[in-house]
Amino acid sequence: MKATVLVRPKPGILDPQGQAVESSLRHLGFEVGSARVGRLVDVELPTEDRAAALDALGRMCEQLLTNPLIESYAIELDGVPVEGVAVAPTAVGPESDGA
Amino acid sequence: MKATVLVRPKPGILDPQGQAVESSLRHLGFEVGSARVGRLVDVELPTEDRAAALDALGRMCEQLLTNPLIESYAIELDGVPVEGVAVAPTAVGPESDGA
Repeated sequence: MKATVLVRPKPGILDPQGQAVESSLRHLGFEVGSARVGRLVDVELPTEDRAAALDALGRMCEQLLTNPLIESYAIELDGVPVEGVAVAPTAVGPESDGA
Repeated sequence: MKATVLVRPKPGILDPQGQAVESSLRHLGFEVGSARVGRLVDVELPTEDRAAALDALGRMCEQLLTNPLIESYAIELDGVPVEGVAVAPTAVGPESDGA
């Protein structure tokens, strides 16, 4: 089963890459609101059991793929977003804001 | 309209980040096939017209967001993958393989 983990900076976390993209897009003449840059990890899993796959992916995210302090994640299985699995981006305290 | 551009290294292009993730996941005890690492860009667009949004996003990808020689991209609008827009990952020549 093909899985994709989408990792995004949480709201309030500085995102210099996103700011650079936003500014460059405007310079190129595009009308855009905010832009944020995250990363994605495609993983091939040796199972067709969705529950087992989601369980493994959740642990992978906690242990390696994301930094839960500053990043949220969402999961897609075979290209389809999995509802209810995304770790909701929560507001962070001001002490994390100036990182 | 919220759009997400998913950028992935094309098949055959070296992906050291993906190799590191794959190796680390195995060391942690996860059974995984290959892992590939790409990036994503969330862009807020000031239009609700899907056709206009896709047109702008395609040009953004060509001009700034991707390197078409070594990367493919796919687009999601409001969290839903857009069929037929992904630039299909094509095989690359051997000269690109050792980058």
